[in-house]
Amino acid sequence: MQVKAKELALLLNGQVEGDPEVEVSNPSKIEEGRPGTITFLGNLKYESHLYSTNASIVLVNKDFVPKEAIQATLIRVEDVYSAIALLLEKFQPSNTAPPEIASNAFVDESAKVGEGVSVGSFAVVEAEAEIGNHSRIYPQVYIGKNVTIGSHVTLYPGVRIMDQCVIGDHCILHANVVIGSDGFGFAPQEDGRYKKIAQIGNVVLEDHVEVGANTCIDRATMGSTIIRSGVKLDNLIQIAHNAEVGANTVIAAQTGIAGSTKIGSSCMIGGQVGFVGHITIADGTRIQAQTGVASSIKEPGQAWFGTPAIKWKDYIKSYGVFKRLSQLDKELNQLTKKVSRLTKMDENQNNKE
Amino acid sequence: MQVKAKELALLLNGQVEGDPEVEVSNPSKIEEGRPGTITFLGNLKYESHLYSTNASIVLVNKDFVPKEAIQATLIRVEDVYSAIALLLEKFQPSNTAPPEIASNAFVDESAKVGEGVSVGSFAVVEAEAEIGNHSRIYPQVYIGKNVTIGSHVTLYPGVRIMDQCVIGDHCILHANVVIGSDGFGFAPQEDGRYKKIAQIGNVVLEDHVEVGANTCIDRATMGSTIIRSGVKLDNLIQIAHNAEVGANTVIAAQTGIAGSTKIGSSCMIGGQVGFVGHITIADGTRIQAQTGVASSIKEPGQAWFGTPAIKWKDYIKSYGVFKRLSQLDKELNQLTKKVSRLTKMDENQNNKE
Amino acid sequence: MQVKAKELALLLNGQVEGDPEVEVSNPSKIEEGRPGTITFLGNLKYESHLYSTNASIVLVNKDFVPKEAIQATLIRVEDVYSAIALLLEKFQPSNTAPPEIASNAFVDESAKVGEGVSVGSFAVVEAEAEIGNHSRIYPQVYIGKNVTIGSHVTLYPGVRIMDQCVIGDHCILHANVVIGSDGFGFAPQEDGRYKKIAQIGNVVLEDHVEVGANTCIDRATMGSTIIRSGVKLDNLIQIAHNAEVGANTVIAAQTGIAGSTKIGSSCMIGGQVGFVGHITIADGTRIQAQTGVASSIKEPGQAWFGTPAIKWKDYIKSYGVFKRLSQLDKELNQLTKKVSRLTKMDENQNNKE
Repeated sequence: MQVKAKELALLLNGQVEGDPEVEVSNPSKIEEGRPGTITFLGNLKYESHLYSTNASIVLVNKDFVPKEAIQATLIRVEDVYSAIALLLEKFQPSNTAPPEIASNAFVDESAKVGEGVSVGSFAVVEAEAEIGNHSRIYPQVYIGKNVTIGSHVTLYPGVRIMDQCVIGDHCILHANVVIGSDGFGFAPQEDGRYKKIAQIGNVVLEDHVEVGANTCIDRATMGSTIIRSGVKLDNLIQIAHNAEVGANTVIAAQTGIAGSTKIGSSCMIGGQVGFVGHITIADGTRIQAQTGVASSIKEPGQAWFGTPAIKWKDYIKSYGVFKRLSQLDKELNQLTKKVSRLTKMDENQNNKE
Repeated sequence: MQVKAKELALLLNGQVEGDPEVEVSNPSKIEEGRPGTITFLGNLKYESHLYSTNASIVLVNKDFVPKEAIQATLIRVEDVYSAIALLLEKFQPSNTAPPEIASNAFVDESAKVGEGVSVGSFAVVEAEAEIGNHSRIYPQVYIGKNVTIGSHVTLYPGVRIMDQCVIGDHCILHANVVIGSDGFGFAPQEDGRYKKIAQIGNVVLEDHVEVGANTCIDRATMGSTIIRSGVKLDNLIQIAHNAEVGANTVIAAQTGIAGSTKIGSSCMIGGQVGFVGHITIADGTRIQAQTGVASSIKEPGQAWFGTPAIKWKDYIKSYGVFKRLSQLDKELNQLTKKVSRLTKMDENQNNKE
Repeated sequence: MQVKAKELALLLNGQVEGDPEVEVSNPSKIEEGRPGTITFLGNLKYESHLYSTNASIVLVNKDFVPKEAIQATLIRVEDVYSAIALLLEKFQPSNTAPPEIASNAFVDESAKVGEGVSVGSFAVVEAEAEIGNHSRIYPQVYIGKNVTIGSHVTLYPGVRIMDQCVIGDHCILHANVVIGSDGFGFAPQEDGRYKKIAQIGNVVLEDHVEVGANTCIDRATMGSTIIRSGVKLDNLIQIAHNAEVGANTVIAAQTGIAGSTKIGSSCMIGGQVGFVGHITIADGTRIQAQTGVASSIKEPGQAWFGTPAIKWKDYIKSYGVFKRLSQLDKELNQLTKKVSRLTKMDENQNNKE
């Protein structure tokens, strides 16, 4: 596909600065840009590459002011990241295979499969499961009994949806995701052993949820573990039984949410964060990577850091002192000595008087 | 299934307080309780819901003293969690499908499969593997060569048991668990490359072990990585080669145990904890979430926190000061100034005398 | 297989100390050594076992000086770990099954499969994929469209290689690894929702890369996420889009690398480490387990610890003081009181004069 700068500007609602006729066929990274490709400058950390890139076109923000001469044609847009999203969609390889149920898949005869659905080789669709229209089930997926899958859903290879779970419309689940494994619930016995507590609830993913590879979401003990509309989960995340994640919250890789904790909407959670169970997190909360959240957060829109989590600013300040703590310790020791000398002098003084 | 309060009280060995004839057909969460459901009050954080719930029956502990009037019928039991475990089992959907070996599974002719075993679609059972009676192998499971699976075992979809590993009776392995992947062992070479060290040991799970979704347990270099009887592992846990986890220890999600470390019995390990290799942890140890354990713990039954781990109480105390460390730093600076002023005065004083 | 001490010494280029005719048939751990087995002493923590082991032969380093009498025959070698690597290879059960494409696998007719390749049951090889000579594809593996797999590669059960990705020669990918899942990229919309940014790049693994069970490596937004030659990744690691890991770097379990971060070559990264996005890490860097690396590291060959990461030595020093921070806080309080007493006295003194 060859596209001209002026055509792209039209698509992206941007202004061309340079040659409107220059053609590109592929996107590229700014530091690897070759002639015939289009790239972008979003994060200003990469600005230096703008002046040396060989890419033919670079997308920049509307108000970007270059510090040096630029060889490439610029397209100025309202928001580079939104423009890039549109652009990559345009260059994405399209899937032209007609939808079909592979003859070597197993689909139970009581399952209901919508129109335009594809089911790949060695996938399993158990009894009474339902799959909405135009959903795409890759090979080797497992869909348990009474599972409901919405329309326009993509389940990549090795996804496991256990019995009774519900997946909304337009959800994307990456390879080897597990939805509806048993919650981690055991009753301690007098002899030190643990008795399993049956987990008879399910997991509900609302619409437009994306779940990263190898992420696990456990079924509720009773009721539902709920992932609200528009939530985006990265890879290797753990969400325990009866947890809830609010709408449009994004969570980075390897974060864990313990049982019955409720995360608000529009939160931004870093990677490797841990939440203890049975707490509530306010809307719009931002949590720094590796933070351990040990109690509820009531004030919305704040940033947190540390284990246990404190306000981000306070952690940064305290950590600044932590770095030179052994110096501070020495100073305190010297001061203690000085003061005891002074005290003695004063006592001498007083004795003299 | 409709059950009366008096029947449940009998089953759970409890006392009815209220209407013994009221009927329920389902369990529910206390904050979502509808008429015709039974719920419970375990964690007192949720006590306020007790006074407003619409559930017909609530399980409470024997000695619970309500602060307000309660609409629901109560059943008082010795231990709410044990009662709930029994109750949920009663309401659990039962699997009535007769066991069968799916025609589209692959079972090597040299494998030995016990009585009442089911093997799902696209599962693979390799040569010389053995599966005990009444075990349930879900679709898409892989059971390697010479693997031994006990009786009454459940392997959920996508579980991988690699060659030579041993799974005890009554074990439950959730979806996409990997047992017996190679340990992470390499010999550094002079040119900076690493040479793989063959991992020729195996993994042994004793009886009544439960392993959460996407958890990995590596095979030993030699001998066995051992998970003792009654251990419960949550999701996304990493257990390295030659590690050992003692009986009835429970470990929360995303914890990692490095090579050759031995965890005692009846320990409680939080989520996202890390253990370095080659250490030993005493029985009954409790480790707070996100802790990094860097050396052996010899005293049994203690609680630990922080990276590297120190006694839980000490960490909490130190962290209390950490939070206002920049304030403390300022105080020290002011004090230093004051003392140097005092010192000068004293010097002046002395000079005068 | 029975081997004599003198034969092993020849193989390992070592010297026998004891009975050159003693025979062994198996390796063992030093604390479990039985007659007829060979074991080794690498880590001196285990030295006490050397004097009590029943193993017939023990490998030790050339310059090892025993403190007590030893019953076993010793073989002294240049480097115990390299010798053990060789030895375990010798005792490893060999795979003698002739390579074959299982009749119950799905291999697209446009895929190119090399010589001596085995493809297991229920594996899927999609259109235009290529598999090099002597590679071994276990059951239930997924190989997407246009994927290129090198020669002598091993893909264990449940590995997923998504479209367009490239796996070099002699790579080993353990069970349930995911290569080429979508990067975590979304453009925030004005209404608070996130729009998916298409991820049209791929993942490239160079030669001799080993990837642990359930590890995920996301495809690049554009271009490639690159794992250089000889890299060894442990289990449950997350590598985000457009990241790069330098040659011969080893990374322990559950570490996460955020988008576009470049790790140098010959680094040693502990477990549960986190790297933020868009930073660069110098060659030979060592990172302690659970560290959070928040900015680029320019100086090569240094050790780091803490969140955010500081020099390892500094963290250890500061943490030493952190442990007794509440004590230090008390001392500061006492000192403050003493100084204010002194100040008052001085004021009195001055007033008197």
